[in-house]
Amino acid sequence: MKNALDRDIPEQIGDRTLRPFQGAFGTTPTGRKAARPQKTVKLGETKVLKSIEAAIEATGLESGMTISFHHSFRNGDYLVNTVVDACARMGINDLRLFPTALFPVHAPLIEHIKSGVVARIEGSMNGPVGAFVSQGGKLKAPAVLRSHGGRWRAVEAGDVHINVAFVAAPQADPYGNATGIKGRTPCGPIAFSAVDAQYADKTVVVTNDLQPYPVYPFEIQQGWTDYVVVVDEIGDPGSIASGTLKITRSPTRLKIARLAAAAVKASGYLKDGFSFQGGAGGISLATTKFVGEEMEKAGIVGSFAMGGGTRLLVDILHRGLVHVLLDGQAFDLDAIASLRDDETHVLIDPGHYANYDSRGCSTYMLDAAFLGATEVDLDFNVNVNTHSDGQLLHGIGGHQEVAAGAKLTLITVPTLRGRLPVIVDRVTTVTTPGEVIDAIVTERGIAVNPRRQDLNDRFVRAGLPVRPLADIKAEADRLTRPPRKPVFGDEVIALIEWRDGTIIDTVRKVVGWK
Amino acid sequence: MKNALDRDIPEQIGDRTLRPFQGAFGTTPTGRKAARPQKTVKLGETKVLKSIEAAIEATGLESGMTISFHHSFRNGDYLVNTVVDACARMGINDLRLFPTALFPVHAPLIEHIKSGVVARIEGSMNGPVGAFVSQGGKLKAPAVLRSHGGRWRAVEAGDVHINVAFVAAPQADPYGNATGIKGRTPCGPIAFSAVDAQYADKTVVVTNDLQPYPVYPFEIQQGWTDYVVVVDEIGDPGSIASGTLKITRSPTRLKIARLAAAAVKASGYLKDGFSFQGGAGGISLATTKFVGEEMEKAGIVGSFAMGGGTRLLVDILHRGLVHVLLDGQAFDLDAIASLRDDETHVLIDPGHYANYDSRGCSTYMLDAAFLGATEVDLDFNVNVNTHSDGQLLHGIGGHQEVAAGAKLTLITVPTLRGRLPVIVDRVTTVTTPGEVIDAIVTERGIAVNPRRQDLNDRFVRAGLPVRPLADIKAEADRLTRPPRKPVFGDEVIALIEWRDGTIIDTVRKVVGWK
Repeated sequence: MKNALDRDIPEQIGDRTLRPFQGAFGTTPTGRKAARPQKTVKLGETKVLKSIEAAIEATGLESGMTISFHHSFRNGDYLVNTVVDACARMGINDLRLFPTALFPVHAPLIEHIKSGVVARIEGSMNGPVGAFVSQGGKLKAPAVLRSHGGRWRAVEAGDVHINVAFVAAPQADPYGNATGIKGRTPCGPIAFSAVDAQYADKTVVVTNDLQPYPVYPFEIQQGWTDYVVVVDEIGDPGSIASGTLKITRSPTRLKIARLAAAAVKASGYLKDGFSFQGGAGGISLATTKFVGEEMEKAGIVGSFAMGGGTRLLVDILHRGLVHVLLDGQAFDLDAIASLRDDETHVLIDPGHYANYDSRGCSTYMLDAAFLGATEVDLDFNVNVNTHSDGQLLHGIGGHQEVAAGAKLTLITVPTLRGRLPVIVDRVTTVTTPGEVIDAIVTERGIAVNPRRQDLNDRFVRAGLPVRPLADIKAEADRLTRPPRKPVFGDEVIALIEWRDGTIIDTVRKVVGWK
Repeated sequence: MKNALDRDIPEQIGDRTLRPFQGAFGTTPTGRKAARPQKTVKLGETKVLKSIEAAIEATGLESGMTISFHHSFRNGDYLVNTVVDACARMGINDLRLFPTALFPVHAPLIEHIKSGVVARIEGSMNGPVGAFVSQGGKLKAPAVLRSHGGRWRAVEAGDVHINVAFVAAPQADPYGNATGIKGRTPCGPIAFSAVDAQYADKTVVVTNDLQPYPVYPFEIQQGWTDYVVVVDEIGDPGSIASGTLKITRSPTRLKIARLAAAAVKASGYLKDGFSFQGGAGGISLATTKFVGEEMEKAGIVGSFAMGGGTRLLVDILHRGLVHVLLDGQAFDLDAIASLRDDETHVLIDPGHYANYDSRGCSTYMLDAAFLGATEVDLDFNVNVNTHSDGQLLHGIGGHQEVAAGAKLTLITVPTLRGRLPVIVDRVTTVTTPGEVIDAIVTERGIAVNPRRQDLNDRFVRAGLPVRPLADIKAEADRLTRPPRKPVFGDEVIALIEWRDGTIIDTVRKVVGWK
C-alpha cells in the first residue's frame, strides 16, 4: 500500500499489521495504554543481586524475549554487550533487542546476530550494526526505527512489550532508585529508560556506584525496580561526546550556521520569551552559538532552550539568555554537571518532551529548531537514517518531534558532502515529512517551504538569499557528476516509524547499482 | 464475615465485594494496573479555559461521576467548595467525591450532601463532614477511608475510577505543568494528585498563578493535563498549619516525648545512617525535636528523615543531622520554602513513599517512627479515625504505611484525654493492626509489644519504665469513671481500608448508649 507520501509500505510484516503514515498529525489514538502486571515487594525483601547472570536468572529471561537498554553512555556503553554476552553464555537466543540506540561500541552484536542470539532489533543502529543489518537477510524481522517520543509511545501503547529492562545507572541505592547525573561515571539523564522501567515485566538497575538510600533525583524509582546489580563499570563517560559534538570549523558550514541565525532573527520569532532547540552536530552547535549572540545583541531573554545538553546551551543558560534549560540527554560532561548543579537546568524524559500519545509535549512549545539531515528532497522531506548508498547508519533521535513541534524548523545542510549531493529529487528514506520543515539553509542560499509564504516574505525583506530549492539543487548538481544510485530489492531491512506509530517509510536491501 | 482481627466485615456493599484484612502483609496483588484511555493533544491546541464552569462543561462532567482533589491547602482549601458549588448550580448531582482529605473548611458540603449533589465520599473527613456522616443515613454508600498509599494503590489498581481530577496548583503554565511549592500562595507538594492526573479521564489544573512555560518541578505534567483554569485564589496557605502543628507545652506530653526519644536511643537503631519519620501532632513534633537532640549529642548523622515536612525537620536537615529529607506534604511554610530551596529536601509522591502494590516504598526503609492515636487497645491495635463516642473525625494519613514499614514504631499517647481513657480493651475502630506496632509510650510508662522481646530487653537494660500495657491501662482507669459507651447499629457509615485494599474495619452508626 502507499502512504501519504506515496511511499510503498507492506500491509503486514510477520504478525504486525502496518498502519501507513497519514500526515504529521493525521492519526488519533484509540483504546487504552498498556498496563503493567501488579506486583508487591514486601517489607524486608532485598533486591541486590551479585551478577548480571543472577539477574538474568531471577527475571526469568528466556529465549525469544525482549530486552531493553538506554543509550546515555552512547559510544561508551558497556551494558548492552555485557548482557547479550551473558545471555549467549547461558544459552539464551532468539532475543529481540530494544535499545534506544546502538553505537559503534556495539559492533560485537554482529557475531550475536550471526549466531542467532539476537534475532531482532528495534532501535537506532548508529554505525556498524546498521551497516551489517543493511546487507539484508540478517535479522528474523525488519528492524524498527522509532524517534525518542515514538519509542516511548510504543511502550505505553503496548506496541512493544518488554520482558526485562536493563538500566545502566551511574548511581543507585539498594532499593533501585537511580540517576545518571551523579556517581563515579555520570552519563547524563537515564530517564529514557523510565518508560521501560515502568512497563517491563521486570526491571534491573545495574550500577557501578551503589550509595546509601535514598539516591535522587528519582529518574528510575524504587517502585519500578525488581533487582539491583552492582558491577565494576557500566560505561565510559569519556566516550559520550563524539566528533559530531564539536562546533564546525569548516568555513562553508560556519556560513550555513550564520545564515541560519540570520533566518531566526528575520523570522519574527526572536523576541522576549523565545524558545529553541539546539541539537548536536557541527552546524547545529554553531547555529546555537550564533543565535545566542543574536539574543545577547538584541537584549532578548528567552523562555527556554532544549537540548540534548551541550556546553554551548549551558553557557546560554549561565549568561541568562534563557530562563530554563530542558534536557532529556547530555552530549557532554558540562551538560551533566549543569543538570546536577543548576536548579534552572531541568531534567525531562522523552515522554514529556516528545510523546505524540500524550496531552502535549515540550517540542510543541518551541519557536525555533536547527536540525541536520543526510538528504533533503524537493518536497522538503528529510532523511536522517540512511545515506544515498542505501546504508542504514543513523537513528531518528528527536528529529521528528522537534520538526513537528517548532514554529520554525530549519534544516541546516551543505549542498555537497564530498562529491555527493545532499539535495535530491527524492530522499532515499523519509524520516521527517516536508510538511513540518519550514526552510532548508545551505551555503548557496535559503529555500523556504512554499507552505510558509509568510516566512519567505520576511526573509526577502531582511535581504536574506532566498532561492527556490530546485535552483540550489541545480547549482550544486552542476559541480559534481551524478552519483551511482542503488537499486533496491524487495526485502525490507527496516521500518521507519513516524512518531505516531504509522510507517513513514521502509529501508530495503540494496541489490545492485545503476 | 470476620477478618484477621476478628472484626465483622460485610461481604458486599453495593456492587463492591469486600476483601477482609488478612494481616499486614497478607495479600499479594494479581492482574494488571488500570490503564488510561489514549489521547493526543496536537500542535496548536490550547488548554486554558476561562472558568471552573467552562472546565466542567469541557470535561463532560455529569451526574453520577467521580471527582477528585488533593488536600495540600488543608483547612485553607477553596477548590473543593468552589467546584461542588459550581456543579450544584449547573444541576449536576449524585457525585462521588474522592478527595485525599476534607477539613472543617469543607463544612458547606453538608448542605450538598443533604440536597443530593454529593452522594458518596471516599476520602478522609476531618471534622464536621465526618461528624455529619457519622449520624448515618446521609450518603448513598458507606464512606471509604484509605491511607495515603492505599488511595494511590486504589487508583492504580482501578478500584476507583476518577472521571475528572481537579488539581489546585499554586503555580502552573498554560500547558498544565504545575507545582505546589512555588507561586503566590504555595501550599507544599501537590503530587498527591499525580496519580489522579495520570489515571482520570480528564485532568483540570486550577491555578491562581499562571506563569510562562515551563513551570517546574513537574509535580503535575503537561502530558497528563487536559485543561488549565485561572482563578483569583485557590486557597489560603495561612491555614495549612493548624493547632496540632505546634510542639506541645503540656508537661505530661513533653514527658511522653522525652520518653519516646529515650526509647529510640535505647532501641539500638540510633546510629549513623539512622532514618526516621517525624509526623505532625504536638507529641510527635516534640519527639522529633528530642530525637534530633539525641543525634546531635551522640554525633550521629542519619541517612534520611521523612515528614510531613515541618520547621523542626527542616531544622534537623539544616543542622546536618540527616543527609536527606523526603516529603510528600508540607505542614508549615518553612517546609515549603525548604522544598523549594534546599536541594537535599526531596519531594516524593505517595506512590513512592507508601504504595503497597509497588516494588517497595520509602517507609520500608525507616528505622523509627513516632505516631499518634485516638485509642490503642490491649492487642496494640491503633485507632486514629474515630473517637470513643463512635464519631468519625479523622483520616488515616500515612499512619498505616509508616507503622507497617518502620523497624521501631512508637505510639505516643497520654493515658487520658480529659476524663476519657486512651488505652481501651478493644479500639472502637482499628486503623492499624497491633502486629506492626512495637511499643506504646505513655506518661505512665512504655508498653512493648510482646512480639518484640528484643526491644523489651533493651529498654529494661536502659532503665526505661517498661510495663505491661494492661497495668498502665488499669492505673489510668482508676483515675476516671468508666465512660458511657456507644451502642452500634447495623448501618455501616464507613469502611476502613488497610493499605492493600482489604477491609480492616467498619464504622457503624451509633444507635444508643450504655
